[in-house]
Amino acid sequence: MKTPKISEAVVRRLPVYLRFLSELKANNVLTVSSQDLGLKLDLNPAQIRKDLAHFGEFGRKGIGYDVSYLIEKIRSILKIDRVINVALVGAGNLGRALSNYNAYLKDNMKIVAIFDAHSGKVGEVINNLSVQSMEELNATVNQRSIRIGIITVPASEAQVVADRFVDAGIEAILNFAPVIIKVPQGIRIHHADFTTDLLSLAYYIDDAEEQV
Amino acid sequence: MKTPKISEAVVRRLPVYLRFLSELKANNVLTVSSQDLGLKLDLNPAQIRKDLAHFGEFGRKGIGYDVSYLIEKIRSILKIDRVINVALVGAGNLGRALSNYNAYLKDNMKIVAIFDAHSGKVGEVINNLSVQSMEELNATVNQRSIRIGIITVPASEAQVVADRFVDAGIEAILNFAPVIIKVPQGIRIHHADFTTDLLSLAYYIDDAEEQV
Repeated sequence: MKTPKISEAVVRRLPVYLRFLSELKANNVLTVSSQDLGLKLDLNPAQIRKDLAHFGEFGRKGIGYDVSYLIEKIRSILKIDRVINVALVGAGNLGRALSNYNAYLKDNMKIVAIFDAHSGKVGEVINNLSVQSMEELNATVNQRSIRIGIITVPASEAQVVADRFVDAGIEAILNFAPVIIKVPQGIRIHHADFTTDLLSLAYYIDDAEEQV
Repeated sequence: MKTPKISEAVVRRLPVYLRFLSELKANNVLTVSSQDLGLKLDLNPAQIRKDLAHFGEFGRKGIGYDVSYLIEKIRSILKIDRVINVALVGAGNLGRALSNYNAYLKDNMKIVAIFDAHSGKVGEVINNLSVQSMEELNATVNQRSIRIGIITVPASEAQVVADRFVDAGIEAILNFAPVIIKVPQGIRIHHADFTTDLLSLAYYIDDAEEQV
């Protein structure tokens, strides 16, 4: 496990930069200034220059960043310029739903295996993947060089699944169970939280008719 | 619809501030400086002071922000200090999965109605909610004062659902369908994207064994 050189907050902003840069590229925009990026993302330009300076000196004063070059650089930094195989444990509603997104996962990142601890689920076919038993986890992670694990089991089972992922050699985990999970140092865990999206939406609803 | 006074990017950062502040409060921390917030969120303190200054002068030089007061203030700004009813359209895997999160949705925000355009789904009970037909959408939104809509239908049906939500008087939409949706000005739409989480996780995987 390499030591991360940039902070988690910056890493989390990179896909956001990437999405906006990809939009620019799709619109044939060749260069972008830190001012323009700042306006779009409402970060001050100094913050953006600082974020991007972690990776070398991309920008050119008075011209800005080359959009295509910056996209390639961020893809390389995020390591999404290579194949990354993902496993998912929990063939319930959320697991099935996420595996549907496989077709939309760009950048060579794919869910290639689905596991479930309940024998009734094993053998079921979900989006062309046959649900495997947890006994097959270690061997499959090894054979398929799976690097990232997604947890979509109930909260009560999430820690056990995380332990199994760690044991199998998974390096990073995306946890959808609404519970805090502990992993050893060196293993990365992110908690997916759609409630944050809902909370920020509430800001935009109308005040007027709420006054009761 | 009121005119939003603060930018989308700031609104999106508020729930992140809120989560960290809630952790601090749970640990009996009474005050926090913009420096500490900055370190945790890897934003520069000036950015944080600027974000929070949108809502008045909370901070006191040398003492920092009162954690409880800041939490209440952000809750009030985000309007999550009141009841907000949410409707969901699409009783498929993702819709079922999200309605499971109801128990974890804090701050009085609840999914109170589920709809589906397919008659086979109507009447099914999901987490104590009986799936309703789309014909009942307008009346239910009205009766239950539903303000936010969640879309969990396939991409091909998402625009139609958004149009129905707008027609029913929904003010904000959280779209999980992997497709860009158009809504009239004054209606807020956020696109949920779990792929961003996955992309930022890729940064943390080990380089060494990838060199082939």
